Formats: sequence, C-alpha cells, structure tokens
Amino acid sequence: MLTLALESSAKAASAAVFADERMLAFSIQNAGLTHSRTLLPMAESLLRGLGKELADLDRVAVSRGPGSFTGLRIGMAEAKGICWALEIPAVGVSTLEAMAFGGPVLDGQTLCCCMDARRSQVYNALFTVEGGRPVRLTEDRAIGLPELEKELVASQEPWILLGDGAELCYNTLDRERVALFLAPEPLRLQSARGVGLAAIGRQAVPAGELMPAYLRLSQAERERLARLDRQK
Amino acid sequence: MLTLALESSAKAASAAVFADERMLAFSIQNAGLTHSRTLLPMAESLLRGLGKELADLDRVAVSRGPGSFTGLRIGMAEAKGICWALEIPAVGVSTLEAMAFGGPVLDGQTLCCCMDARRSQVYNALFTVEGGRPVRLTEDRAIGLPELEKELVASQEPWILLGDGAELCYNTLDRERVALFLAPEPLRLQSARGVGLAAIGRQAVPAGELMPAYLRLSQAERERLARLDRQK
Repeated sequence: MLTLALESSAKAASAAVFADERMLAFSIQNAGLTHSRTLLPMAESLLRGLGKELADLDRVAVSRGPGSFTGLRIGMAEAKGICWALEIPAVGVSTLEAMAFGGPVLDGQTLCCCMDARRSQVYNALFTVEGGRPVRLTEDRAIGLPELEKELVASQEPWILLGDGAELCYNTLDRERVALFLAPEPLRLQSARGVGLAAIGRQAVPAGELMPAYLRLSQAERERLARLDRQK
Repeated sequence: MLTLALESSAKAASAAVFADERMLAFSIQNAGLTHSRTLLPMAESLLRGLGKELADLDRVAVSRGPGSFTGLRIGMAEAKGICWALEIPAVGVSTLEAMAFGGPVLDGQTLCCCMDARRSQVYNALFTVEGGRPVRLTEDRAIGLPELEKELVASQEPWILLGDGAELCYNTLDRERVALFLAPEPLRLQSARGVGLAAIGRQAVPAGELMPAYLRLSQAERERLARLDRQK
C-alpha cells in the first residue's frame, strides 16, 4: 500500500512516501516559502524519483491540526484534492501525535509535544512510549504554560520536549522542578515522516470527512463573536 | 553562502541545501533505485522548491567515503560535474564524520560510527561530542569486530551506534561487557544533512582535488593483485 504523507502545520512543509510501514522517500523545505507553492511539487518529485506517479497512490495521510490555520488549510486542501481526483481515501492525523511518532521512541520515555499557540499557551499532548509506539496520556488541548508546568511537575517524570514550542517550554518552565530535555533537532519538529508513521494501521476515510482540528477559534471568528457580543 | 550537500555512500541517496549554517531543504530516497538516477534530480528539485537554481550555489559538499564504491563514485562525479560547470569549489567529508554530525550531538556522548564492510569488518571511527560538535577519537579505519569490541570495552564508555553497520554491531558485540545504544532511526544513517553540517566552516578546495577514500582495495584491484601474485 502506497501512502503519501503531507505535513504543513507550521513553518516547514514536508512530504513522505511510504510503502506499507517503510518510508521510501522524504523531503522537507524550511525556507519560509508558502506551502501552497512547495508542498505539491515536493510530493510529485518524490514520486517521480521513485519511478511512481500520483495515480499509484492508495491513500493520503495529512496532519489535521492543531497548527497554523493557513498551513493546515493548505495541507488539508491538497490532500482532499488528490484523494478526490484519484478516488482514494485519506487519513487525518493529529499534528501532536505525528510529532510523537516522529520523535525518539524508546520504551518508557515520556514525550511532551507542544506548539506555540501564542498568548502564553501551547497546543499540547503528552505521550509515553510502549512497544516502540507513542501512547496517549492526554487529548490534544490548548493549555496555559503555568498549568502545563503544574502537570509535568506532579508527574515526577523526565519529559522530552518536541515541536516548535519545545524551546518555549524549555526556556519558560521551571527546570529546577521538572527534568526537561530538548529532542535532537531533526526529531524535534513535526514532519511528514511522523504523519506517515502515525497513519500506519489507521483506518482511512472518505476524504470529504476530513476536518481540521484547530482547537481554538480563528482570529476572524474571535472578532466576529466579540462584535456580536458588543451588539447584544 | 549556499551549499549543496550530497550523500550516496550507501543504499539511500540524499541531498540538502544549506544557507550558511541553516538547512533550508532536505530530501532522501531509500527505494534501492540507482543513485545515478535519483541524486541530481533530487538536488534540482530541492533548489527549485527554494526558488533557486544550480547557478546560485557557492559550493558543493559530498561524502568522500568510506562506503559503497559505486555509490561514492556517483556522488563524487556529480559533485565534481556541478563544481566544474559552475566554477565553484567543493568540500569532501568523511562518511563516518558526516554520520557523527548528523547524529544525536549532546555534549559528553560517545559515538561509534560504523558501516558494514563485509568479511567481519566495519568501516569505523569513534567520536565524542564537545560544544555540540563531534570530535574525533580515532581516524577512519577498517577494523575487525573483535578488535572494535576490545576497544569499546576498554573505554568503559557507553556508545551510541550510528550508520548502516549499527545493527550489525549491536547484534554482534558483547552487550554484557559494553553498553551499546542504537541511535534513533532517522539519525542513525548517513545523510546529506550530516554532510552539510560537517562541511560548515570547512575550507573548500578545487573540485579536481577531491579524492574518494575507500579505505580498502576494490574487488577488481584485489583480484588483480592476487593474479599478479600467482604469476610471480
């Protein structure tokens, strides 16, 4: 089964091709160019390099959030477009779970996946590793840094920080009260490799059913609600 | 300074583009297709995705061995071809050193980089990490597994195994006498990311001066010498 995995939830964009559980090819761009320009050509050139084409794909896996609203929309739209054209199904994967799958997965390790959500919050989920696979300890959530600190301290575990919010947590949380480690750089950020790994064995669905999981309202929605509120 | 890094010393082929010390883009193919077919298109598509072209390059970094004779020749030939056409210099990097630079570089860690050289030998070099950079403890060498085991045991250090010979060492060496750890998978194998990192701050030379470092005679040379020997 040939899977194309796409990741565009943050500044970098990446694509990977998996044959069943094996990653055949991977590509990442991190130069700040818009994902709408880089993501699809990247996928096409990966497939071409493998002597394959889009039509050979059996499914598309994509990170469905949380993350940058624009980035997620580009990834989801491209995934849905490919699936619709080829009549193949899709797998939506939590961005935070993809981070955990792409991270250092040694049994017993505890992973704290976080993206900077601004306003002193992070998008976060906690995992532990069992049998080489991350297992969830929490749902995906937007959480304040003081509240996260309280949870991590109470756990009495050492935490490996993953994600584009890893450095924020490392620099903000009280490292005298909780042992924190930054994951090695190429494992730290979300990538299509993690999306592809997280999608293994996952049931694919009709692409039309994929929905982004923003976890928070967009700025436009917040402003609209505030406006409605003022009009009351 | 824009650097193209190429790695083709083993089964996978990869390319990366660095702006000074920052990796802008990276791509890897590991499907067993010949590197002569995948490496250059991969480099071109990386540059295109960055809105750049070959002519924008300032230098090319390439792994010069040890490794697969054919793989090294393809990488070196492509590097030299690009450098010659663009009149830019090149940096040759030890495959084993590139592995170390691409690995988990936490200070104090000790890295054992190894490639399967067949006939109970590995191509190997040992490094320790200081100031976030691998520092050599040995030269690159072809070494028998029993001899390597003796060295590692005598060191009394725990060793992180890197390279396509990492599993061979993990499964062969006596883990009751020396603590061995397999590096996490995407850090384990040599890649153009490691080549690019190892090339940072390194003096580039005219590409004509690049020479592969095989560390051992090729099969053809061994057979020729044996033939000459028989004729004596």
